[in-house]
Amino acid sequence: MTARALVAEGFGSCLLVATVVGSGLMATAMTGDQALALLANALATGAVLIVLISLLAPVSGAHLNPAVTLVFALRRAIRPGLALGYVAAQIMGAVAGTLLAHAMFGLPLVQIGETVRTGGAQWLAEGVASFGLIAVILGGLHRADLPRLVALYIVGAYWFTASTSFANPAVTIARSLTNSFAGIRPQDVPGFALAQVAGALLAAGFAGWLFRGNPRD
Amino acid sequence: MTARALVAEGFGSCLLVATVVGSGLMATAMTGDQALALLANALATGAVLIVLISLLAPVSGAHLNPAVTLVFALRRAIRPGLALGYVAAQIMGAVAGTLLAHAMFGLPLVQIGETVRTGGAQWLAEGVASFGLIAVILGGLHRADLPRLVALYIVGAYWFTASTSFANPAVTIARSLTNSFAGIRPQDVPGFALAQVAGALLAAGFAGWLFRGNPRD
Amino acid sequence: MTARALVAEGFGSCLLVATVVGSGLMATAMTGDQALALLANALATGAVLIVLISLLAPVSGAHLNPAVTLVFALRRAIRPGLALGYVAAQIMGAVAGTLLAHAMFGLPLVQIGETVRTGGAQWLAEGVASFGLIAVILGGLHRADLPRLVALYIVGAYWFTASTSFANPAVTIARSLTNSFAGIRPQDVPGFALAQVAGALLAAGFAGWLFRGNPRD
Amino acid sequence: MTARALVAEGFGSCLLVATVVGSGLMATAMTGDQALALLANALATGAVLIVLISLLAPVSGAHLNPAVTLVFALRRAIRPGLALGYVAAQIMGAVAGTLLAHAMFGLPLVQIGETVRTGGAQWLAEGVASFGLIAVILGGLHRADLPRLVALYIVGAYWFTASTSFANPAVTIARSLTNSFAGIRPQDVPGFALAQVAGALLAAGFAGWLFRGNPRD
Repeated sequence: MTARALVAEGFGSCLLVATVVGSGLMATAMTGDQALALLANALATGAVLIVLISLLAPVSGAHLNPAVTLVFALRRAIRPGLALGYVAAQIMGAVAGTLLAHAMFGLPLVQIGETVRTGGAQWLAEGVASFGLIAVILGGLHRADLPRLVALYIVGAYWFTASTSFANPAVTIARSLTNSFAGIRPQDVPGFALAQVAGALLAAGFAGWLFRGNPRD
Repeated sequence: MTARALVAEGFGSCLLVATVVGSGLMATAMTGDQALALLANALATGAVLIVLISLLAPVSGAHLNPAVTLVFALRRAIRPGLALGYVAAQIMGAVAGTLLAHAMFGLPLVQIGETVRTGGAQWLAEGVASFGLIAVILGGLHRADLPRLVALYIVGAYWFTASTSFANPAVTIARSLTNSFAGIRPQDVPGFALAQVAGALLAAGFAGWLFRGNPRD
Repeated sequence: MTARALVAEGFGSCLLVATVVGSGLMATAMTGDQALALLANALATGAVLIVLISLLAPVSGAHLNPAVTLVFALRRAIRPGLALGYVAAQIMGAVAGTLLAHAMFGLPLVQIGETVRTGGAQWLAEGVASFGLIAVILGGLHRADLPRLVALYIVGAYWFTASTSFANPAVTIARSLTNSFAGIRPQDVPGFALAQVAGALLAAGFAGWLFRGNPRD
Repeated sequence: MTARALVAEGFGSCLLVATVVGSGLMATAMTGDQALALLANALATGAVLIVLISLLAPVSGAHLNPAVTLVFALRRAIRPGLALGYVAAQIMGAVAGTLLAHAMFGLPLVQIGETVRTGGAQWLAEGVASFGLIAVILGGLHRADLPRLVALYIVGAYWFTASTSFANPAVTIARSLTNSFAGIRPQDVPGFALAQVAGALLAAGFAGWLFRGNPRD
């Protein structure tokens, strides 16, 4: 069971990042309109997220995100040792996803992101994005349509947060290895990751109170 | 229970307006094509609406709209005092949403809308938009997929009404505080709000008759 | 019951055509890209179709289309007299929808379509569009998600048929009264309507055989 | 039963390819933006896929793809003789779909594709696309929303694979007969088909292990 769960987290994170990076590469190769590229990027990500969460949830819970695993560890819904394994699998899978996208598009496998994503406004955006993501997950834990709600939230957050809503430390690390539409400078990764974790922890408290009348996980 | 309901109405209205204003800012920063900006605006709004209504309905009913609260008050589905609290929470949350969007994009927090939205055609559009919204809500009160129906209706109404379907007095007030794609001149707010309430009241009567064979709320 | 059913057919047809015509007006006012306009047109139509069929099906069956009513009359699922009433309500509602869209956009209420839509390829496209629509309806009669299937089919058919899939004689008549993106020349209406009815009748036979193992209406 | 199943596979493959080819023709006739054309192409394909799989699954299983039929034959879920019939019906239906799309758009019925799609990166992309498709199907075999998951996966894969995810040998053959947006050179078909089968077989092994805790087909 544990082996399959770890593979599920790695496989899912790989396909998720391959979608984010690959759809950005495809879109910017086809259009000069940045909004159209973000639309393709958002729709592809949302579509694949529904699939991954639906199919992998019975195997591993489909966290696919260290911030999510952290929140569940704090809620004692996953053991600390397994949580560490999840995070390692997520990061390795996510990085493999960037390499896979580059390979499919015939590009150098490893690149260094050059897109500047830093400063208070961007960190606020990542905090809001992650706050919302954790609130959705905890508010919808008991719902069969949770995969859809998470994906719809992310599609919306791609547009309403100024940072396009990375909201995932493993994905952020993996996106620092591509110099393309989805990229981020490596030195901007820690700021994003801290903002994501801060937003997630705040949301865990808020959602625990707001949705306390709902069935528990 | 009441405190959580009021917070839910405020939180939901905040995130709804942050989505409307923020996605408009993002889209117009990325493209000069107004239709593409409206498409991003509509899809982001619809996506987040499904999430908010699904998760907040068990807490507060997820009105997120003074016109909706008014109709439910007239149907005696909510007490007048609580209804007033809902409307206050909706307006405060909506205004906070505009400020939050501005903060995430590094813009002045409070602005004055300059987009002219007035005249008979626009008021008719807002009346139609609100009529349809209330008809959908009352016709689908008994349905588990009501969040999806409301969101799909709004996505459609963004396009088929000439006003892009504000259909919500609290959101209209909040949108008067941004000078961006989603903005409206403050002096045009009363006309929109009156048209919205008129459309909502007409729909309450019509839908009460048309759907009287359906299960009641 | 009958009065409400007729009003439901008229109201639904009105809102459907207001969506088709209005979203075309909005889109072409905002962009010069015809594909983007059709995308907005298709998404708005699909979104509103799901809402209308979901909510009106319990009241009238939500035919909203004389070709659909004809097929159900031939299957003896609706009495001939009531079927005639349905068709009249659909045509009157659809025409009202064109007028309503024009009013919301501040345009002359009645116009004459000037878009040429005629010839064998266009008629084949309308025949295929209507064949598919009736096949979907008859194949999915027993399914709770039929509204979604019909809407998704129409969204697809907007793109894969060369005629953008009118697939509805009442809507075709109403679209001859607008000189805009969604318009059609009045003299081209009979050809479209004949092709639609022919496609529908062929599909009734085909689907009756293909899906005969499915639950009946 | 067998006759209806074969007709279902042929009819579904025809409508699927008519959608892929037709929506490409429509989009490129309306815009010069390739990303917008791919967006229309992807959305139309996804919409029609949900409809086809939902309605034809009870009749034939809705394989609509020789790679899928091969995997089910290896799992002994379909007899070898019937599987051959399925593949023949899929190829004949798919080719008919290309002809139907050309007829609706008033073009020469049979054309020769001229789009170069070959080389290691493209083959990797097709292998990944097919791997993912089979993994989704086998992981979701027991789910009522499998049609939606397959369609969402394909919409995503249109964007994240460099090949736009043909992922279907019958569709690949049919797309070699159009010289348009969706086309492929005939000499590039074998490479694509081999990569698709390889990806499908790998996925059958992987998914059989990853999802072995799930209900079986």
